[in-house]
Amino acid sequence: MNSVGRVFRVTTFGESHGPAIGCVVDGCPASLPLTKEDIQIELEKRKPVSEVSTARREQDRAELLSGVFEGKTLGTPIAILVRNKETRSQDYDAFRNIARPGHADYTYFERYGLYDHRGGGRSSGRETVARVAAGAVAKRFLSHEGVKIRGYVKSVGSVSAGEFDEIDLAKVYENDMRTVPKYADAMRDEVLKAKKEGDSLGGIIELIARIPAGLGSPVFGKLDADISSALMGIGSVKGVEFGSGFSCAKMRGSESNDPFEIRDQKIGTSSNNAGGVLGGISSGMPFVVRFVVKPTSSIGKRQKTVDFVRKKEETIEIKGRHDACIAPRILPVAEAMLAIVLADHVLLKRCSHLG
Amino acid sequence: MNSVGRVFRVTTFGESHGPAIGCVVDGCPASLPLTKEDIQIELEKRKPVSEVSTARREQDRAELLSGVFEGKTLGTPIAILVRNKETRSQDYDAFRNIARPGHADYTYFERYGLYDHRGGGRSSGRETVARVAAGAVAKRFLSHEGVKIRGYVKSVGSVSAGEFDEIDLAKVYENDMRTVPKYADAMRDEVLKAKKEGDSLGGIIELIARIPAGLGSPVFGKLDADISSALMGIGSVKGVEFGSGFSCAKMRGSESNDPFEIRDQKIGTSSNNAGGVLGGISSGMPFVVRFVVKPTSSIGKRQKTVDFVRKKEETIEIKGRHDACIAPRILPVAEAMLAIVLADHVLLKRCSHLG
Amino acid sequence: MNSVGRVFRVTTFGESHGPAIGCVVDGCPASLPLTKEDIQIELEKRKPVSEVSTARREQDRAELLSGVFEGKTLGTPIAILVRNKETRSQDYDAFRNIARPGHADYTYFERYGLYDHRGGGRSSGRETVARVAAGAVAKRFLSHEGVKIRGYVKSVGSVSAGEFDEIDLAKVYENDMRTVPKYADAMRDEVLKAKKEGDSLGGIIELIARIPAGLGSPVFGKLDADISSALMGIGSVKGVEFGSGFSCAKMRGSESNDPFEIRDQKIGTSSNNAGGVLGGISSGMPFVVRFVVKPTSSIGKRQKTVDFVRKKEETIEIKGRHDACIAPRILPVAEAMLAIVLADHVLLKRCSHLG
Amino acid sequence: MNSVGRVFRVTTFGESHGPAIGCVVDGCPASLPLTKEDIQIELEKRKPVSEVSTARREQDRAELLSGVFEGKTLGTPIAILVRNKETRSQDYDAFRNIARPGHADYTYFERYGLYDHRGGGRSSGRETVARVAAGAVAKRFLSHEGVKIRGYVKSVGSVSAGEFDEIDLAKVYENDMRTVPKYADAMRDEVLKAKKEGDSLGGIIELIARIPAGLGSPVFGKLDADISSALMGIGSVKGVEFGSGFSCAKMRGSESNDPFEIRDQKIGTSSNNAGGVLGGISSGMPFVVRFVVKPTSSIGKRQKTVDFVRKKEETIEIKGRHDACIAPRILPVAEAMLAIVLADHVLLKRCSHLG
Repeated sequence: MNSVGRVFRVTTFGESHGPAIGCVVDGCPASLPLTKEDIQIELEKRKPVSEVSTARREQDRAELLSGVFEGKTLGTPIAILVRNKETRSQDYDAFRNIARPGHADYTYFERYGLYDHRGGGRSSGRETVARVAAGAVAKRFLSHEGVKIRGYVKSVGSVSAGEFDEIDLAKVYENDMRTVPKYADAMRDEVLKAKKEGDSLGGIIELIARIPAGLGSPVFGKLDADISSALMGIGSVKGVEFGSGFSCAKMRGSESNDPFEIRDQKIGTSSNNAGGVLGGISSGMPFVVRFVVKPTSSIGKRQKTVDFVRKKEETIEIKGRHDACIAPRILPVAEAMLAIVLADHVLLKRCSHLG
Repeated sequence: MNSVGRVFRVTTFGESHGPAIGCVVDGCPASLPLTKEDIQIELEKRKPVSEVSTARREQDRAELLSGVFEGKTLGTPIAILVRNKETRSQDYDAFRNIARPGHADYTYFERYGLYDHRGGGRSSGRETVARVAAGAVAKRFLSHEGVKIRGYVKSVGSVSAGEFDEIDLAKVYENDMRTVPKYADAMRDEVLKAKKEGDSLGGIIELIARIPAGLGSPVFGKLDADISSALMGIGSVKGVEFGSGFSCAKMRGSESNDPFEIRDQKIGTSSNNAGGVLGGISSGMPFVVRFVVKPTSSIGKRQKTVDFVRKKEETIEIKGRHDACIAPRILPVAEAMLAIVLADHVLLKRCSHLG
Repeated sequence: MNSVGRVFRVTTFGESHGPAIGCVVDGCPASLPLTKEDIQIELEKRKPVSEVSTARREQDRAELLSGVFEGKTLGTPIAILVRNKETRSQDYDAFRNIARPGHADYTYFERYGLYDHRGGGRSSGRETVARVAAGAVAKRFLSHEGVKIRGYVKSVGSVSAGEFDEIDLAKVYENDMRTVPKYADAMRDEVLKAKKEGDSLGGIIELIARIPAGLGSPVFGKLDADISSALMGIGSVKGVEFGSGFSCAKMRGSESNDPFEIRDQKIGTSSNNAGGVLGGISSGMPFVVRFVVKPTSSIGKRQKTVDFVRKKEETIEIKGRHDACIAPRILPVAEAMLAIVLADHVLLKRCSHLG
Repeated sequence: MNSVGRVFRVTTFGESHGPAIGCVVDGCPASLPLTKEDIQIELEKRKPVSEVSTARREQDRAELLSGVFEGKTLGTPIAILVRNKETRSQDYDAFRNIARPGHADYTYFERYGLYDHRGGGRSSGRETVARVAAGAVAKRFLSHEGVKIRGYVKSVGSVSAGEFDEIDLAKVYENDMRTVPKYADAMRDEVLKAKKEGDSLGGIIELIARIPAGLGSPVFGKLDADISSALMGIGSVKGVEFGSGFSCAKMRGSESNDPFEIRDQKIGTSSNNAGGVLGGISSGMPFVVRFVVKPTSSIGKRQKTVDFVRKKEETIEIKGRHDACIAPRILPVAEAMLAIVLADHVLLKRCSHLG
């Protein structure tokens, strides 16, 4: 099940240490201007940027294999390919059949009876290259539809971003923490402290989108349900919430309900606990979703684990350089997934009225 | 998009005040013993039980229309029908085009250009009758596969359930709060207090399942992703988390990673922050998911809103008796949705190996 | 797999001798005028009409359970139910586990390990009641889109319909053979002759549709591919062809190619060997598809067969009255299936351009 | 809609003169031995072989990008890439917006509002490289399941293959006509005669498969319905029939019904008019399907046509060398599509019983 979407449909393929990672985007409307550079721009956002990330260099170059002719989409499948670099796969041989705690080695083995032990194989974060590439196509389409997506790292460990405005959000990618600029330094310090101790940190990401009212299909294709699935499907994500989210457990209805009002002759609500979605359909208010990213599973400290083939307890020490906090690098992946879901729903809405 | 599942596939239909609610379950394996009573038992769990719920009497009788012959499933679609009672639909005429805060009236109107204003139409909680019926079939199949689902209301407003054991969980449906028995009274008091003030409360529900390792399909059919979608697709749910969930944002990797161990010759982990799922595939550890239910949107207090056709501000006072806290009634719906997703993944796993 | 369609999606359920047959139509655009009568009109076309058909009386009354409010579709699933009459199921007990030649008893048993032996269960022609009901919704939508479907029985045994015009086609349902009126008598004679001998006849049906150019999705959702599947999925159908069909095996390219021309400032072709579809996409020329219906499997003559549980050879004599030629009754089913496929493609086309 | 299959799911991409053609095979069971050579062997069968085919040299080399590790499938998506050679695309500029009769130029333009005019773009026969590659994976899986597919060109123009045996079928790929060896010369003469006249021929292909009883999913996933769709979705195919096919229109039921019998303690039928499928489910008898391939649309003769952008009548003369009869080259494509459908149904059957 490596495809997502109903009409705007994305399929990804590729293992971390196989020849390539890629995607096929099927159902993108024809005549959309699209270039290799549109995709490359998004791939750049995903690359490690500083000492808070892995020291591995990923020189991902997108190749556009199909679906575009003379700078415009044809309506046919858009295939995008990114080669994996030559990698020293033998580095991983010592870990073969040794479950890295927090990783999917063991569960893949249980699912398929075999697995690619080199860097996580298909479960590697590297697979998100394909999602970001597909998301670039979705974003291009959405920009034609007037939909805009923003996001930022809201917290890392004990450091949270506080107040911000539109201008702050536009500058998120200018700092390595992918956060509201004024909080970047404090977050970075938090990450580096953990890193020095051979440890890692979790964090929270918030996405905000301006989308028209009326997107989302009851009852099993609700906008928030589809987005939950899309975000929870990103490695390391353990929770998703919309609007006031888990905090509404302690609210009362009179406080949680957003009163409707008319402002500038448009219908809206005076608060936004709903996060822009009611009954699974967008209300036209800002769409707000948050999700939690667990601390990076690969840490420098020695950990207890097992050899799951020989059923024997072991210890493991994962060397190399890893992202001490993965949240900044997940942001562009999450934006991509949100874009893919929204593109699908924009198209689906066209089918719900008489011509 | 009123269908869910890939191989075990459920479609629901019906509006709150239309003639009937129902479902079609396609892909249930043949030869499964199934009776009307199996379905009725689950429908009973969904009914309002006490003064904490609506005073409406719902005498839902399941009718089994197809797919079962001589007490066993045929492998053909199982259609289940529940008639709606005669209802005084004119009671709702005053609310026509008036958006009830927290409800989906306005968003459905934006989506489709018209809507059934009687009690929420398709967005009504009544639609969940169909999900519970379909879930009854899924549960029946899962019991053959050794999968067991439990759940309870974990908190309501400021009252939380604390410690509990297996026996407590087995008794959840014996109290009207659908919670660990010893916390039921405190929760009920909390609800009745809100109710007396014409207000409502939110809450948190936890589901726990014993499932084998190896369920879940990377990368867009992950078990936790599918379950997020299934739970978020229930009305009033605003957030979902697995295992340590949002609390892992403040953890370190050395704390969050669950060390693997071997106990009784079986592979497991000594902690369960993952909630039984790694890389979207079940690990064999207890599967733990929580979700938040917002305070019931229908409250007795007068609220500000708009007439969305005439684009005019209005106030609304929703009479009648409503669930002051919907969490207890959502529990069986959530169990049903979890069962539907698990049934699908149990079948999908059969396709992942050579014969 | 009891659903068909991508955006306009139909699910059917029900066994011949179970409580009911029905369908759920999901994805029909909102605001379409639709009544119970629209459905009943189509169901009437499917009923046996004269001595050429079975003597069984089928008083199928459609019940509209959801998706319509105040005479218009809501955009939500449209469920339609038709009750089966009380039937003397014990009539079939003698045939239990005895494979009726030409029927699906044995293959269902191989597929599922059990089957409903009463009148074919799910494999009964009675299931087509649900398809016709769903097709009625599709036709209603298509009439709004300017798409029109006609069809007629082209041959029965050795009798073929020859020349006809538009007016003839409009009168097909006025005769029991569902054919061009002037050939009805000869066809009926052919059928009655076979019937008197306890035997049955096959036939060929042709459907003709006026559809706009540009419907059909390459490469696995081609219009003709989808229609082939839809028609071949009707019981008794053993072949499908478009335009010149099998006869083009003996043509040359210079003869088979339809030259493009401009007439009345519209693009068309001067011949129509393609049957209105090129590369799986409609060309705007008349859409022409034919399919063959095998002779009715239930015949009065004694036949050799087996008891597939006891693995023992047997003979069988199928009593009761059956359609000596099923072609006339399949016509409305085929129209329904064509309508369902076309409705889906009309909606899909909306997704292929920028907004 | 560039994907086919439910559990064994194939997506193809690529235009004739774009950078590459490829496919993603999702859902292939894990642990299946698979190499690049397995795919290359099938691609070789698709290449032009002699003067009956185009003189273009296609040096298609398959690249295996993912899903295989240490010679075995991982259960993850298998991506296969075939580069297009450098082609002189400007050769096609003269034909821009000129509809080649029998081709899909105009209909693609109507569908998408633009098209890739170079050699048919996505509608080119070249896209079948991807299907053959995917089919190679399916065949590999089927061979593990004991399913075997054979096929041959049954007729070309007025020349038909007559009697044959198992040994003949095994040698089909040894001659350029892909037919029963003893008829190859007569067929070749027929083709070369048409070719000399600047014309082309159609033909009929028959596929025969040994498959177990019980494959196929009623009512919209019937085996024959799925196969019809798969074969009709190949360019140039205008008709499909199973078993006695269109000839059963003139049969009587007593002749058309295949009597069941027991031979060697196995259930079978003494004739095989059904072609191995009853009620959409395989019976265990040889599976027999035929389809017609229209004469190649690209012919040397001057043809009447239109410029569909300027809406002006034109004439066209298609130079270059084309297959005078495409049937021999379609055979491996048809085998591939049949294999893909069968692989899907083999897996689906696993889901129809209790574990």
